[in-house]
Amino acid sequence: MNAEIVAVGTELLLGQIANTNAQFLSEQLAEIGVNVYYHTVVGDNPKRLERAIVQAQERADLIIFTGGLGPTKDDLTKETIAKHLGRKLISDEAALQTIISYFQKTGRVMTENNKKQALVVEGAKVLPNEHGMAPGMFLKIDTSHYMLLPGPPHEMQPMFRKYGRSAVLDQLEAKERIESRVLRYFGIGEAQLAEEIDDILETQSNPTVAPLAGDNEVTVRITARHQSEDEAVLMIDEMEKRVNERVGEHFYGYGDTSLMRELLKVLEGKNLTIAAAESLTGGLFQSEMTAVTGVSTMLIGGIVCYSNQSKLKLCNVKEDTINNHGVVSEQCAVELAENVRELLGTDIGISFTGVAGPDSLEGHPAGTIWIGISLKDKPTKAFLLNLAGSRNGNRKRTVQYGCYYLLRELKN
Amino acid sequence: MNAEIVAVGTELLLGQIANTNAQFLSEQLAEIGVNVYYHTVVGDNPKRLERAIVQAQERADLIIFTGGLGPTKDDLTKETIAKHLGRKLISDEAALQTIISYFQKTGRVMTENNKKQALVVEGAKVLPNEHGMAPGMFLKIDTSHYMLLPGPPHEMQPMFRKYGRSAVLDQLEAKERIESRVLRYFGIGEAQLAEEIDDILETQSNPTVAPLAGDNEVTVRITARHQSEDEAVLMIDEMEKRVNERVGEHFYGYGDTSLMRELLKVLEGKNLTIAAAESLTGGLFQSEMTAVTGVSTMLIGGIVCYSNQSKLKLCNVKEDTINNHGVVSEQCAVELAENVRELLGTDIGISFTGVAGPDSLEGHPAGTIWIGISLKDKPTKAFLLNLAGSRNGNRKRTVQYGCYYLLRELKN
Repeated sequence: MNAEIVAVGTELLLGQIANTNAQFLSEQLAEIGVNVYYHTVVGDNPKRLERAIVQAQERADLIIFTGGLGPTKDDLTKETIAKHLGRKLISDEAALQTIISYFQKTGRVMTENNKKQALVVEGAKVLPNEHGMAPGMFLKIDTSHYMLLPGPPHEMQPMFRKYGRSAVLDQLEAKERIESRVLRYFGIGEAQLAEEIDDILETQSNPTVAPLAGDNEVTVRITARHQSEDEAVLMIDEMEKRVNERVGEHFYGYGDTSLMRELLKVLEGKNLTIAAAESLTGGLFQSEMTAVTGVSTMLIGGIVCYSNQSKLKLCNVKEDTINNHGVVSEQCAVELAENVRELLGTDIGISFTGVAGPDSLEGHPAGTIWIGISLKDKPTKAFLLNLAGSRNGNRKRTVQYGCYYLLRELKN
Repeated sequence: MNAEIVAVGTELLLGQIANTNAQFLSEQLAEIGVNVYYHTVVGDNPKRLERAIVQAQERADLIIFTGGLGPTKDDLTKETIAKHLGRKLISDEAALQTIISYFQKTGRVMTENNKKQALVVEGAKVLPNEHGMAPGMFLKIDTSHYMLLPGPPHEMQPMFRKYGRSAVLDQLEAKERIESRVLRYFGIGEAQLAEEIDDILETQSNPTVAPLAGDNEVTVRITARHQSEDEAVLMIDEMEKRVNERVGEHFYGYGDTSLMRELLKVLEGKNLTIAAAESLTGGLFQSEMTAVTGVSTMLIGGIVCYSNQSKLKLCNVKEDTINNHGVVSEQCAVELAENVRELLGTDIGISFTGVAGPDSLEGHPAGTIWIGISLKDKPTKAFLLNLAGSRNGNRKRTVQYGCYYLLRELKN
């Protein structure tokens, strides 16, 4: 099966946004063995959209459209496709109920044009939209497959993951199973990791091994094809073992996870509570922690001690410490971690203090950062980072290092 | 003149990178009044690339290719185009010298395939590459224009800005200027905004008015064409006035800004300090504030009071308040905002307390959120939100509403 992704939206042709939907879908399709041969972007113009449909029909078995399912007059993807395919648009009761209840819940006024979002192409399987109002659609006519997805990535991505992907998989005839597993590494660069497993990369065929640089991390995707799913999984297990014999020290988790999620798993497993004192990170550590559901038994709370004043007043840092060592210091990190732990009576206190940048501070260049970790009944430790990123790159990476070091301390 | 952007590269079709080159070029072309009707992405495959060329020739006056000019075997954009146009490839002496001197300078060994990068299509104007080795090209045959640009954005962007843009401008007959302005709105949906200005959208021609839904926001882009730049700006001013007579209450800023940035501008202008107490947002408000450089004179610090325990211990909320009203209450929001302001001696205290979700709390459904705003010498106010998003959607939106309400209070 080969696919073409057609994004509809004048905002793409004006350069207001990048076509990240095509990237996401291409990655997803590659994972399940569907070849993508073309991406097309076309504006909110029925004539040109119809031309794009005709041409995609000539060269693809599966056409995925994104965008143009909204309530306004320039949203005309499904209207144009329905007309081209000679199908009617009919109102989908479930989608209409979702829309009505959204407006009831938020107390906002539902205008007439919002009902248009509940219209679907006759005969299409409806893909529910759990993060917005316009439903998606999947339709098979002869040997051609059509999928319509909404434009906003936060609606489109979960819809494809939950409903779209399996709708495509059902249509695949291949009897070979494709299994893949993603391994995640922190504290090692992509080039270094690739060098460590150079011979494996050179000789790979099945399973394939693909390193990819991510958000200050490296992932390695191992993909195996086999008629038996069990056999494919065994092949992956074996390759994972080979890779981690070389770089296992930096390995921290599988698939769609993060250092924060892995840390929370350990806190939950060991029944531990935590408090944080954040200077340069300004609440980012705690904000990322509370992004995960169910952390209230672990994160008791903490302090954003961005100014010296708040370090003294809220975190009881000694004036001597700031005068003699400065806030970019091991001593300050240690006091912050110990004091916030004691203030909130938790098992763990963690602190972040240093220079995010772009300017230097107290004579320390941007990127000089101390992380303090205080565990009950153990001597408090501090870790020094020397980062070279932008202000926000440094803040983000500091939080990742905080999770990484704390994970290591808790595993020892 | 209308254009099509053809990006060449299998890495795009595998979803390894997004087609940000098309976005950049579209924005640049819109600025000089060239309409972009299509983007196409095709892999490193001569047959499919040739098909894409044929089709682009049918529908565009200017075809801009990006990618596939490098030294490796799968770089075949110029080879395929030259063959299709019946032109030879010839070595460009200046480009060859650039490549040779690059290798001399870095002390690296120049391999034979690097010379391939100096080949250009016969008859093309060469666009120098000042950030890499492969030169760009511009070629006019009859009424068709072809531009070839390298794939890496840090080479392509400066090349287009310095050489490509003027090469296109030279071909334009119209002397019209195109000006555009983006207006940002919060607290109103795209559908509602579109309905409020429906008659304007229906009758628009010059200037054009285009609403776009963003991150819980709506933007409106007004674009005017006129021979005189001043006249175009006046036309935009007038249209902005007409639009804002209807929806101006929700307008908050121009162009590349955010509610947080607008809030910081006001705090800076009025020389005000702020402290925050965050429950469900878990530090997100302060983290987004500290993402901006130079906020240390404004944000003194604050408390992440995620648990009841931390509301009592760190924020001095009365036990009675929690027992009688709960934490999802106006009373709790008011106390948090007042107490954090007093604790840190700031001009402003802001608080966030409520239910992010997905579960309900104290009998309140997910999305029930109170924002408290305490200004020195004024009665403290609290604002109730009823949001319908995901956990993190609600947290993010709560921070936006916090900025929005505080901005309104400070402007009154």
